[in-house]
Amino acid sequence: MSTSTSTQHTVPQPSDQSAVTVLGLGPMGRALAGAFLDAGLRTTVWNRTPGRDAELTARGAVGARSPEEAAAASGLTVVCVVNQDAADGILRREAVADALRGRTVLNLTADTPQRARAAADWAAAHGVRYLDGAIMTPNTTIGTPDAVFLHSGPQELYREHRPVLAVLGGTHTHLGEDIGRAAAYDIALLDVFWTAMAGYAHALAVARAEGITGRELAPFAQGIAAILPPIFAQTAEEADAGGYSGKDNPITSAASSMAHIVEASEAHGIDAGMMRAAEGWARRVVGLGHGTDGFIRIAELLGRR
Amino acid sequence: MSTSTSTQHTVPQPSDQSAVTVLGLGPMGRALAGAFLDAGLRTTVWNRTPGRDAELTARGAVGARSPEEAAAASGLTVVCVVNQDAADGILRREAVADALRGRTVLNLTADTPQRARAAADWAAAHGVRYLDGAIMTPNTTIGTPDAVFLHSGPQELYREHRPVLAVLGGTHTHLGEDIGRAAAYDIALLDVFWTAMAGYAHALAVARAEGITGRELAPFAQGIAAILPPIFAQTAEEADAGGYSGKDNPITSAASSMAHIVEASEAHGIDAGMMRAAEGWARRVVGLGHGTDGFIRIAELLGRR
Repeated sequence: MSTSTSTQHTVPQPSDQSAVTVLGLGPMGRALAGAFLDAGLRTTVWNRTPGRDAELTARGAVGARSPEEAAAASGLTVVCVVNQDAADGILRREAVADALRGRTVLNLTADTPQRARAAADWAAAHGVRYLDGAIMTPNTTIGTPDAVFLHSGPQELYREHRPVLAVLGGTHTHLGEDIGRAAAYDIALLDVFWTAMAGYAHALAVARAEGITGRELAPFAQGIAAILPPIFAQTAEEADAGGYSGKDNPITSAASSMAHIVEASEAHGIDAGMMRAAEGWARRVVGLGHGTDGFIRIAELLGRR
Repeated sequence: MSTSTSTQHTVPQPSDQSAVTVLGLGPMGRALAGAFLDAGLRTTVWNRTPGRDAELTARGAVGARSPEEAAAASGLTVVCVVNQDAADGILRREAVADALRGRTVLNLTADTPQRARAAADWAAAHGVRYLDGAIMTPNTTIGTPDAVFLHSGPQELYREHRPVLAVLGGTHTHLGEDIGRAAAYDIALLDVFWTAMAGYAHALAVARAEGITGRELAPFAQGIAAILPPIFAQTAEEADAGGYSGKDNPITSAASSMAHIVEASEAHGIDAGMMRAAEGWARRVVGLGHGTDGFIRIAELLGRR
């Protein structure tokens, strides 16, 4: 029989490097599974709401009937769902924990560092090897050089699975053994992203009230985005050093500028709640006697214990 | 006598193209005056607080004793002070209005479109030719290709003074005859800038609370800034068209992400007022039944009349 023949030749079991499971088939989970398939890996997929795996199974993915069946199919299970509550709802069941014992979970679900640490505690208590990660770029970047992944957790475990992760493309950075570190970076970077996007949405509304179209504003807004990177680098150094140069741009000027934005917005009946909050931070810095300091002193104000 | 000899040859009066006055010698006003001097223009300067002109007069600028004396020295007076209240305090006096009659004021003071229009009304009532403008880049860019200037007001008047403005370097865009248009762009673009900067300051505070330095965070934050330009272009088109694709990134996901940021911030005792305001906008869009739309639908929410 072929089975005994195979045994004689010590056929290797499917290893971490040849099989991977993806739990969660939203746009990002589907992109991840697609990249694994493209790389020729045996890819098992599952989603709480059925029917999301049709395109993937047509391309060769194995559609599992349950998360425990999916988890049992691979040495590495990648979880990518809407938030940690959803991840907990899938993982924290006896059948799933049993299937995962001795295997690795890479949790790419976005949530807080606090919850990433709690999830790792659960994994340790159930003999599940655990890595946490964050994807910093849109799902359309998966499998391309533009994708950016952050990882945290045991260095050895990360190294073991690094070859499989490489097929997702882009850059992968291991940030350290503290399991919450990827989520902490994720939170801070999404803070920058969503704040900027909300500011842009607000600017589009103000511009439209002044008869300026999005298409007219966008090229100049792109120019604003282009000046941010060097300012981010310089002000980060200032924040680390605790010295906030306001020689050319004192925070009093910023506060004045922000007040104009609030006034111009509200003159059109447009809510300026975000800018009012930011202006309040700047005015508190001024009120604490640091009006000649630079804008980024706000970071110190916010972090005061 | 040389005077009569000169008169015989109809020596031209100093024209707009050879002399310029700068009122206001903060960092930006000094940069403007310095660029005019570098170009060999006869440059007259004045500042409310004395002593700010020392470096400029050492370089050949004429230090005027009053704004009316400064205004009388040139066909073009550039005003760059902290806000329109300060500009009004300088310009709206009989002696200054008399000196400016028939001459041109280019007001590069940042304020609201509403106040730019009011200032133009005052100028028209006093026979003063009037242009408004906005400088979108730091004072260190003045005289370099990186400077970005926006202008609005009468096209012919702008064209007349265009050669003098060219010596300030960078790009100059005339946005239209509506005098408030440069200020409206300025407000919308500073909205993007200060919101992004405040978000970055907040992110630095959250990162520090998680043991992440500014220097560690900055390269990834620069990566976030780098993905904004194409998103700004695409979402501006969506805002103009009134169709907000949320296929890959529904606003429900954004709201969930923003809630994580609020939670992670406040778990460290860090105020999350800006993000709470932004999350509130996203949740209102969801509440109005548009949860599968894209994030930029917030622009429409904010602009509702």
